[in-house]
Amino acid sequence: MTTETDDRETRHKARAVKHKQVVDARIAAAQIDKGLLLVLTGNGKGKSSSAFGMVARTLGHGRKAAVFQFIKGAMDVGEHAFFANHPDVIWEKCGEGFTWETQNRERDIASARAGWDKARAALADPAIHLVVLDELTYLIRYRYLALDEILPPILARPAMQHVVITGRAADDALIAAADTVSVIKDEKHAFRAGVRAQNGIDL
Amino acid sequence: MTTETDDRETRHKARAVKHKQVVDARIAAAQIDKGLLLVLTGNGKGKSSSAFGMVARTLGHGRKAAVFQFIKGAMDVGEHAFFANHPDVIWEKCGEGFTWETQNRERDIASARAGWDKARAALADPAIHLVVLDELTYLIRYRYLALDEILPPILARPAMQHVVITGRAADDALIAAADTVSVIKDEKHAFRAGVRAQNGIDL
Repeated sequence: MTTETDDRETRHKARAVKHKQVVDARIAAAQIDKGLLLVLTGNGKGKSSSAFGMVARTLGHGRKAAVFQFIKGAMDVGEHAFFANHPDVIWEKCGEGFTWETQNRERDIASARAGWDKARAALADPAIHLVVLDELTYLIRYRYLALDEILPPILARPAMQHVVITGRAADDALIAAADTVSVIKDEKHAFRAGVRAQNGIDL
Repeated sequence: MTTETDDRETRHKARAVKHKQVVDARIAAAQIDKGLLLVLTGNGKGKSSSAFGMVARTLGHGRKAAVFQFIKGAMDVGEHAFFANHPDVIWEKCGEGFTWETQNRERDIASARAGWDKARAALADPAIHLVVLDELTYLIRYRYLALDEILPPILARPAMQHVVITGRAADDALIAAADTVSVIKDEKHAFRAGVRAQNGIDL
């Protein structure tokens, strides 16, 4: 080994040691355990799939999850086929598609309200470790349900229960209430290049 | 029903009809089926979990998935516990943590290379519908592997195979090669409020 290589090696090791100290200190400073409210919003691909990945993680830890799909209820999606019959999963299809698909606002509001009643029961059950409210943001945005109906049961949930809300254009009050917010930017999307929704990726 | 309500109803219906026409036309224009290259990058929470949600979707469609975890190999994570024993899943832990954790660059490079050899085999197998290269971006960023080794097998993969790459700071060449790119912005994160990684959410 040359002296130059030795030096580079030594510098790399010194940096790695220092970085480890910084990271270890940050990790040591974060010791709270609590049920989190996560909001995954923005126009990019990956919001709902991320929530379903957290369902998998939850089940991997032997805990229960409940999923409420507020819009895509009528679609035949892979996540439903995969998770819905798992003994530790509650899966409710609460919607019949976007309002421009159903063309019937009253029916959409009735579906949203029936779905929310079921979601509220999950939000009151400490045995459920994770509640996914998939595409809930649209219910607020389209005024199917008021924020005043949605926020209180979320905030009053069991202390260790996690909630994940997905959907574009999350209301400011949801973002303010959340512990973690990811805004998923649509940098590029295959759909604009003429590719339709693909099994396994989009549904 | 008052005339005002009637009017509002009529306007809503007209808008919904028009919106449906626009959406239907866009959907009709997107008819291509192809294996996609997705890049999920940015500093926000949700990149890996999104990839695991797509694993669930893939399995829900009765297809096979392969997952290569390039960094978190040493951690005990819920997604591994949940998916690794599924008959349609190949799951390889290819890493021992970030370089500042292992404190041994040579060992990290050797792990990365051994992992990449296994990933290449999956990228050549048309029976695998989805290949997840979890935290691959760090291998390029830390120069464990060169882009010239990584991109060609991805680009030469079977035509209908999907690939999802996750990790911060994705290289420009990966982004240029991708069909879909989501940049996940860290708007708020519970970790900064002192909450450690939570089972079911972060691991």
